[in-house]
Amino acid sequence: MITGGAGFLGSLLATRLLAEGLALGGEERREVEELLLVDLAAPRGPLADETRVRSFTGDMAENLHRLPDADAIFHLAGVVSGAAEADFDLGMRTNLDGTRQVLEWARARGNAPVLVFTSSLAVFGTDADGAPLGEIHDRSLPTPASSYGIQKFIGEQLVADYGRRGFVRARTVRLMTVSVRPGVPNGAASSFLSSIIREPVSGQTALCPVPSDTPVALSSPQRTIDGIVRAAETPDAKWGSRTAMNLPSLTTTPRAMAEALDRVTGHDASRLIEWSHDPQIEAIVGSWPSLFRAERAAGLGLHPVDSIEDIVREFVRDHAPVPDSDTGSGSGSADQEAARAR
Amino acid sequence: MITGGAGFLGSLLATRLLAEGLALGGEERREVEELLLVDLAAPRGPLADETRVRSFTGDMAENLHRLPDADAIFHLAGVVSGAAEADFDLGMRTNLDGTRQVLEWARARGNAPVLVFTSSLAVFGTDADGAPLGEIHDRSLPTPASSYGIQKFIGEQLVADYGRRGFVRARTVRLMTVSVRPGVPNGAASSFLSSIIREPVSGQTALCPVPSDTPVALSSPQRTIDGIVRAAETPDAKWGSRTAMNLPSLTTTPRAMAEALDRVTGHDASRLIEWSHDPQIEAIVGSWPSLFRAERAAGLGLHPVDSIEDIVREFVRDHAPVPDSDTGSGSGSADQEAARAR
Repeated sequence: MITGGAGFLGSLLATRLLAEGLALGGEERREVEELLLVDLAAPRGPLADETRVRSFTGDMAENLHRLPDADAIFHLAGVVSGAAEADFDLGMRTNLDGTRQVLEWARARGNAPVLVFTSSLAVFGTDADGAPLGEIHDRSLPTPASSYGIQKFIGEQLVADYGRRGFVRARTVRLMTVSVRPGVPNGAASSFLSSIIREPVSGQTALCPVPSDTPVALSSPQRTIDGIVRAAETPDAKWGSRTAMNLPSLTTTPRAMAEALDRVTGHDASRLIEWSHDPQIEAIVGSWPSLFRAERAAGLGLHPVDSIEDIVREFVRDHAPVPDSDTGSGSGSADQEAARAR
Repeated sequence: MITGGAGFLGSLLATRLLAEGLALGGEERREVEELLLVDLAAPRGPLADETRVRSFTGDMAENLHRLPDADAIFHLAGVVSGAAEADFDLGMRTNLDGTRQVLEWARARGNAPVLVFTSSLAVFGTDADGAPLGEIHDRSLPTPASSYGIQKFIGEQLVADYGRRGFVRARTVRLMTVSVRPGVPNGAASSFLSSIIREPVSGQTALCPVPSDTPVALSSPQRTIDGIVRAAETPDAKWGSRTAMNLPSLTTTPRAMAEALDRVTGHDASRLIEWSHDPQIEAIVGSWPSLFRAERAAGLGLHPVDSIEDIVREFVRDHAPVPDSDTGSGSGSADQEAARAR
């Protein structure tokens, strides 16, 4: 079962699970027999036609009682940071009450499923005393600076206690900023960290609203899915701390991203990036941690991408428009061939 | 307004506020005009007859809409650790939903009152990876090992965000184990840390279920009230971090408590302590932190009691039975005189 299963990461996760199966809790790898996608929207693309997918569309609370048992629950559903800050009650209802409803549902079934909860690096924020965040390690104290961060951190605590009491087999991972997201800007403060790669690859301009040397912690979509799946596949005894695990990230800057973009595309695509300043976005992005020492994740074999080039390549491979001609000439065509072969 | 205002700490706080007034947020000290006590039970003793006290007895959620505005809210109400562990739903309803109801009530009034939330050292517990707790400082990461600890820690997060958004002027303090509580054992795992002083002072036997050299972090009732009141009286700008503040505590052992008991009473009262072993209580008490470096509290002028003798003296002064004869001879009589003079 995947809540938020029609979203970008939910769809990626669904595709991965259907293709590769799951070695739940470190047991033998098994094919996924049935995948329940719970979301406000219906799944699109190949997932919509997949016979093993059952889609439950609409309000989650109303759908829960209709669901059959699940061996594994991936709870990704939630409203993003901007929306939770703009509408406090919406965020509380969706991110806090929603998580509690999923946990209560799992508890009521009585089968103690593996439950992977996706928290966020947004649990870390600049505290009211102005203390610098510095390098984040596995036992750094979160002091969220947004309602989204608070709601995710509360979700972590709920999941930890439902796990301690044996209601679920609890696994919480904190996602880093995912780049490159396909599609269109989503209004999140971090949206530009996808746009400045995505738009130039398609020959379109993109705005970078922060100084080019602003440090940011990124993960690619596939590396993010790696972390979510690894959480579900780690044996209970090996998972360790009840606290959320920070997923690995690469610390980079918009300037380094622009340079990598040019190297991967083989031309000066980064000329399409417009460098500007948005004080509001600067303040938000500046309150995020940018340097993580993810030792716990490393102990489970999870590592960040080697370079920002890998992040650009993954996007070009998976999402860049396929050239019209059969010659396949032009930037990233080899990567596109690989994508079509998957 | 005090939720849990008829309990032991709530009554102490009420008595203090009525006697001394309040310098709310560091402003001028004012007398308390009206004190709203919200609790399942009605206040007893002098508080029941105090004309400035208005008592709202029964279910808190049902009482909230009847309450007038309050300039300051002390949210002490909750179920104790043992009850929250034995009855998960009761703990969630009272400790989590109850705190949220108080916050929503304050938010709806729109007057941004000072809100002091009493959290607990129980937010700290032994993690599933067995990492030793060590010395706790102001930015130590809580990994609660009980549902009570989780619910209190979630309450801290809610209070922090309601504060950040300006719905309340937020102040969270973490209480240490309070000793000596008057009355009878309350079934909490820490109950013996009051019994081994309280009972021998009255000539009764008491059980110590842990090894005599078990380290514990204690605060006296009056020092605990000092911390709660100081939180309300600290200016917003001086409060600093949104994270809860650990109140000061004295690290001691049952053996040191027994020795202090004999010194203060002037005779071998500690012979009435029966030293035994209860593996279950040993495990719980052993999972608590016993050593705190409360620098933030010290910065606000809050310090632990100088010695365990002070804790014993405070109890003898405030609660030991008054001698029948007028001579006032016997242990602690000078302290009792002081108590009667208050």
